[in-house]
Amino acid sequence: MKKIRLFTPGPCAVPEEVLLEMARPFEHHRTDWFKGFMKEATTKLQEVMQTKNDVITITGSGTAAAEAAIVGCHPPGSKMLTVEGGKFGQRWGEIAEQYGINVHRHEIEWGTAVEPQWIADYLKQDPEITSVMLTHSETSTATLCDLEAIGQIVNAAGKLFLVDGITSIGALPVKSDDWGVDVMITGAQKSLMIPPGLGFLSVSERAWSVIENNKSQPAYYLNLIKARKSGAKNDTPFTPAHLLIRGLNKALDILLEEGLENVWKRVAVMAAATRGAGEAIGLTVFSKRPSDSVTALTCPAGLKVPDIRNGLKERFGIQSAGGQEHLKGKIFRLGHMGYVDEMDTMVAIAALEQVLYKLGHKFELGAGVTAAQKVFAERL
Amino acid sequence: MKKIRLFTPGPCAVPEEVLLEMARPFEHHRTDWFKGFMKEATTKLQEVMQTKNDVITITGSGTAAAEAAIVGCHPPGSKMLTVEGGKFGQRWGEIAEQYGINVHRHEIEWGTAVEPQWIADYLKQDPEITSVMLTHSETSTATLCDLEAIGQIVNAAGKLFLVDGITSIGALPVKSDDWGVDVMITGAQKSLMIPPGLGFLSVSERAWSVIENNKSQPAYYLNLIKARKSGAKNDTPFTPAHLLIRGLNKALDILLEEGLENVWKRVAVMAAATRGAGEAIGLTVFSKRPSDSVTALTCPAGLKVPDIRNGLKERFGIQSAGGQEHLKGKIFRLGHMGYVDEMDTMVAIAALEQVLYKLGHKFELGAGVTAAQKVFAERL
Repeated sequence: MKKIRLFTPGPCAVPEEVLLEMARPFEHHRTDWFKGFMKEATTKLQEVMQTKNDVITITGSGTAAAEAAIVGCHPPGSKMLTVEGGKFGQRWGEIAEQYGINVHRHEIEWGTAVEPQWIADYLKQDPEITSVMLTHSETSTATLCDLEAIGQIVNAAGKLFLVDGITSIGALPVKSDDWGVDVMITGAQKSLMIPPGLGFLSVSERAWSVIENNKSQPAYYLNLIKARKSGAKNDTPFTPAHLLIRGLNKALDILLEEGLENVWKRVAVMAAATRGAGEAIGLTVFSKRPSDSVTALTCPAGLKVPDIRNGLKERFGIQSAGGQEHLKGKIFRLGHMGYVDEMDTMVAIAALEQVLYKLGHKFELGAGVTAAQKVFAERL
Repeated sequence: MKKIRLFTPGPCAVPEEVLLEMARPFEHHRTDWFKGFMKEATTKLQEVMQTKNDVITITGSGTAAAEAAIVGCHPPGSKMLTVEGGKFGQRWGEIAEQYGINVHRHEIEWGTAVEPQWIADYLKQDPEITSVMLTHSETSTATLCDLEAIGQIVNAAGKLFLVDGITSIGALPVKSDDWGVDVMITGAQKSLMIPPGLGFLSVSERAWSVIENNKSQPAYYLNLIKARKSGAKNDTPFTPAHLLIRGLNKALDILLEEGLENVWKRVAVMAAATRGAGEAIGLTVFSKRPSDSVTALTCPAGLKVPDIRNGLKERFGIQSAGGQEHLKGKIFRLGHMGYVDEMDTMVAIAALEQVLYKLGHKFELGAGVTAAQKVFAERL
């Protein structure tokens, strides 16, 4: 007997009902059948993303959606500010440079979040900036920034605000419109509970006016002008992964039936339980400002990350993530997104105790699960 | 009772086994589990594409794969020749222009194929040309060009040869390497018998040397240099639609078990039966050089394409395609790709007779199915 338990911060576990939905007999995509669930899924996405703006679906990864946003929102003469405290923040700066976009890439220590005041100061200092792009929940370091405060600053300064919400939408409280986000980007295989293959972005009227006047953008497949034109008819400019959209429509039903506020609460509690359990068994939470969608734990001295991750996988089928770039070998990560509930999290914590115990880590066996039990009892 | 019968030239019918394969419990994609079937699928793709070159898988549509090829193969100073006798041939020229690539877009009458001699003459006349991009089977007009003859010419002239084989690979006899194709592009949802969401391209060493020296290419997500680097480790640079790749691996087993030569024969016979049946009931085959992967029939005078297509769909669940651009209302198309055999084709022909009869078209009822029966009996 070997169960697969996905605790990676994407792809995340997908409800069986969603997988079966995608296995049903299907039609062509240029049909009312497709347009029907495309429209439904888009409306539900707006709710999950907390926006009234257009939501565009792209067949590709979250990076593809982000690239579409970056290319579209930066006509010649624009200048972008990115904040790079992890692998994904870095990537948005790299994409901008690849397209020859003028970009100031602000590097911060991995595991920390940018101070809203720094953004305010920088925008005063460099008036050429036309847009700010941030990663809300930096998956590589499990770190969250204060999107609401930064949104106020960016909006007051009249800049476009692009946000990578790939591991925050559907997991964490995010109010795209209320927080002044012009382009909110997310992906399929995280909290939206479908397998990888789709990226999404919401686009404000202010962003559309920049995109639609940006005649020099080279992208064809990742062209938002084409996407908007087709999207208005609940269609896509190119053949979409329509069965994934069908699955999305089903997954969003499950998510919205639970209720967004309840989902946010569940995720927060699972994260708190994991952090509490980790500390109770002598581990350290890596991030100085932890995100609730994924927890990064520092590997204790004397142990090796691959041994911990292999132990979790071999004995219990639990798939976790390691660290990326210079964090490789230093941290390991457990996700709280997708089709996981408190008791799944309890399993991950109990399994982690078992693995660490066998590896010789010194701690009081049961302290982790006890800490988690207390968090669940107090908060739910 | 309402059956869905997909005769659109993509998406095409997918074997139930493939749909169920994708519904099975799954793991993360940065695992040996994924790399295992990624490697298997790539090896099988090489066989289906008849190439020993690297095969790259992109999460996106066939257009995304084509865009990756166009961007990668055209550094500053290059000049591309495209042949445009339909919607897809047109698209490759549009993409080139969007990227500012110097391109000569040769327009020909829709429904005809370019003469190999024209290519030879043009290459002599315009020595600036560095690459030729052709659509082998132009889906919009159901027309095939003589790829083998053109390949010899393009190779003799020392130009890069890019081919859109989206509706030919896996359906029609294609020998990518023998015919000197540098980049062969194809898509998931045609003859490869999986739902939409993946594009593929094979890349020759000659093409790689151009791509890897093309430092100015802007594309990030559709960047072939990144794809090759990851591909060497049976991996992808960005999160792939890994369940579709899992389905692909299964679908290619089914295809290769039948045997490529047998598949090609089956498709040719289904196309011949459809053309024969069409003519026997007083319809005209639109293309002057028909492709076997899809048949375009001209709408008889007095009838309307939407009535024919709706009749097929409402009564028999048969989904067909109409004409595109100026062929809208003039032709309708039935595909011969994907999970369809002779008897499925017989159903499509019989249904077409029923629909045309009700619409008042004059013909001898049964003449179509009889013509098809004869083709099957003679050729199989």
